[in-house]
Amino acid sequence: TQTYQITLLPGDGIGPEIIGVTVKVLKAVGQQCDLEFKFTEGLIGGVAIDQTGNPLPQETLDICRESDAVLLAAIGGYKWDNLPRHQRPETGLLGLRAGLELFANLRPAKILPQLVDASSLKRNIVEGVDIMVVRELTGGVYFGEPKGVFSTENGQQRGVNTMAYTDAEIDRIGKVAFETAQKRNKKLCSVDKANVLEVSQLWRDRVTALSSSYPDIELSHLYVDNAAMQLVRDPKQFDIIVTGNLFGDILSDAAAMLTGSIGMLPSASMGEGKPGVFEPVHGSAPDIAGENKANPLAQVLSAAMMLRYGLDQPIAADKIEQAVFNVLDQGYRTGDIMSEGMTLLGCQEMGEVLLKSI
Amino acid sequence: TQTYQITLLPGDGIGPEIIGVTVKVLKAVGQQCDLEFKFTEGLIGGVAIDQTGNPLPQETLDICRESDAVLLAAIGGYKWDNLPRHQRPETGLLGLRAGLELFANLRPAKILPQLVDASSLKRNIVEGVDIMVVRELTGGVYFGEPKGVFSTENGQQRGVNTMAYTDAEIDRIGKVAFETAQKRNKKLCSVDKANVLEVSQLWRDRVTALSSSYPDIELSHLYVDNAAMQLVRDPKQFDIIVTGNLFGDILSDAAAMLTGSIGMLPSASMGEGKPGVFEPVHGSAPDIAGENKANPLAQVLSAAMMLRYGLDQPIAADKIEQAVFNVLDQGYRTGDIMSEGMTLLGCQEMGEVLLKSI
Ligand SMILES: CC(C)[C@H](C(=O)O)[C@@H](O)C(=O)O
Ligand SMILES: CC(C)[C@H](C(=O)O)[C@@H](O)C(=O)O
Repeated sequence: TQTYQITLLPGDGIGPEIIGVTVKVLKAVGQQCDLEFKFTEGLIGGVAIDQTGNPLPQETLDICRESDAVLLAAIGGYKWDNLPRHQRPETGLLGLRAGLELFANLRPAKILPQLVDASSLKRNIVEGVDIMVVRELTGGVYFGEPKGVFSTENGQQRGVNTMAYTDAEIDRIGKVAFETAQKRNKKLCSVDKANVLEVSQLWRDRVTALSSSYPDIELSHLYVDNAAMQLVRDPKQFDIIVTGNLFGDILSDAAAMLTGSIGMLPSASMGEGKPGVFEPVHGSAPDIAGENKANPLAQVLSAAMMLRYGLDQPIAADKIEQAVFNVLDQGYRTGDIMSEGMTLLGCQEMGEVLLKSI
Repeated sequence: TQTYQITLLPGDGIGPEIIGVTVKVLKAVGQQCDLEFKFTEGLIGGVAIDQTGNPLPQETLDICRESDAVLLAAIGGYKWDNLPRHQRPETGLLGLRAGLELFANLRPAKILPQLVDASSLKRNIVEGVDIMVVRELTGGVYFGEPKGVFSTENGQQRGVNTMAYTDAEIDRIGKVAFETAQKRNKKLCSVDKANVLEVSQLWRDRVTALSSSYPDIELSHLYVDNAAMQLVRDPKQFDIIVTGNLFGDILSDAAAMLTGSIGMLPSASMGEGKPGVFEPVHGSAPDIAGENKANPLAQVLSAAMMLRYGLDQPIAADKIEQAVFNVLDQGYRTGDIMSEGMTLLGCQEMGEVLLKSI
């Protein structure tokens, strides 16, 4: 039996409910695949602020560092929206990314055949869409210095952030992107704003230089404004997109929404030889928290990504993904993806049909 | 007779063709409305590089400054893509914006009933979409200092741009947005990334403070990633969006593409008491340049924006917009917006039916 130490970070809102379902699913799959999971819980986000005053207590970071992988649910809620920046849930999330050096964020936007009609786009435009956004996660304007609000000579305030990337930062995320492309359809599109930004020109130059080591990958470049247009116009043209932190934030969310069902989308954030963090793309949905209405499937699929990318257990990952596919095929739906003729289930009940399907 | 001095900047690719049609339309409308237009041509973009080595010769800027309004077509093409930055067509465009202090960019994304089916989105999602993006155009990461590629202590290269806004910059674009909202449906959405960026927090604080002077306007705030999602999910929720230079670049293009017919979309860039620049959203389309295939309607509608926002001649603007509406109603289409049962026209011929309709 292979044993894994998994840190659970349920966070806020619907977090505890969807993590609860996911733990059961992991245990069931573990039994079948001879894997044992040891779970430890940590505090992050609003719940951590309430209990410790800090959105990312040192203890949480320590537990995460000692584990093989981290399963995060979601953070945030109206309650903490107006706190000073260093006490906000988001600051905890950014601290976790920096603390674990999670420089590579993988965000699949894949449309499931059972849910094509949930998209706001026409069926022929989105059917078959399967995009992977590889987003740089620990650099760019999210972390660049100097930053802050400064006073200018003439008594004005000037808000400043710095969008910066070094060679090394670009190269390491570029490598992840090319390698991911090798496992998929070998088409990589790098997105930047090199016609305006020097930092983007460096990005483009480095990615172009890297491509000579990956002759099997077809590399293209798009400006970010054009990429946003192309995602809307014809998303099927994309296989993998690699881009910086801010552009990745925007484009991965746009790509996610093309599917019409962001309650279904997982993500993986990874470093080098450090535990990765696996979390749904959706937020903490405070409006339905505790009501057994949440869709646990993105969290469950995040556990599948954890098995595939973090723990190198592709068979167990396949089993989970297959189970999700099956329950959808059987017509089971939570409220967010409900449509006529389907069977509406709560969060718990969705967990139960999943367990049966494994 | 009121006389106006108009600078024409045909630029590259299809620019000269669509400007040619537009000049004829302006003359026809001028005759009806007792307006006289005096046209002077200037060089910008690739054609300016070829003839002078500079994408924005000083002479062009001088002519623009002396005129009442500037009608720009489009710049750029493969030919100039690999020149050093200061010699690129885009640099000419940025220089024009800075030189005329065009801090406010208005980009309507309005779906015309005749062209709803051109959208990649479902009819019920896009029918009636009418969004105005108010984009800050002379600040933010496009112009912030320091910028460049620097060497770090350990021999790395570091590409840097600075995303910065002062109070005054935010206030003046905010005012334009609130005033634009007063002329429309009084719903303003400000887009930023205040959960991560200090510059965005200042943006949000200033826009919020401004709103007390506009009690009739309903102000909301969205993070840019969420805004990108909401545009895809349900674009009808938006009336006016106000945002910074980079976010505006991305979101206005995404919004434009929702209509499925960017060959139809005009834009206005304006300063304070200075001539504005009016140009289509689409590019120079070098692949069809000189083939009489271009759609001149976005350029023609840009002339209507010039009349409305730049020269305060709303009646003449209405006439042009009505003429465009009519030719679409009559089933005339250029290649980019062609559909079954319609009549395909070239650029010139589209101009002729427009003239008949005025
Ligand atoms: C919550 C926020 C800080 C975060 C980000 O901007 O990275 C979120 O939008 C995401 O994409 O994970
Ligand atoms: C050509 C480029 C510099 C420009 C921009 O980024 O502003 C264009 O994309 C636009 O939106 O007008």
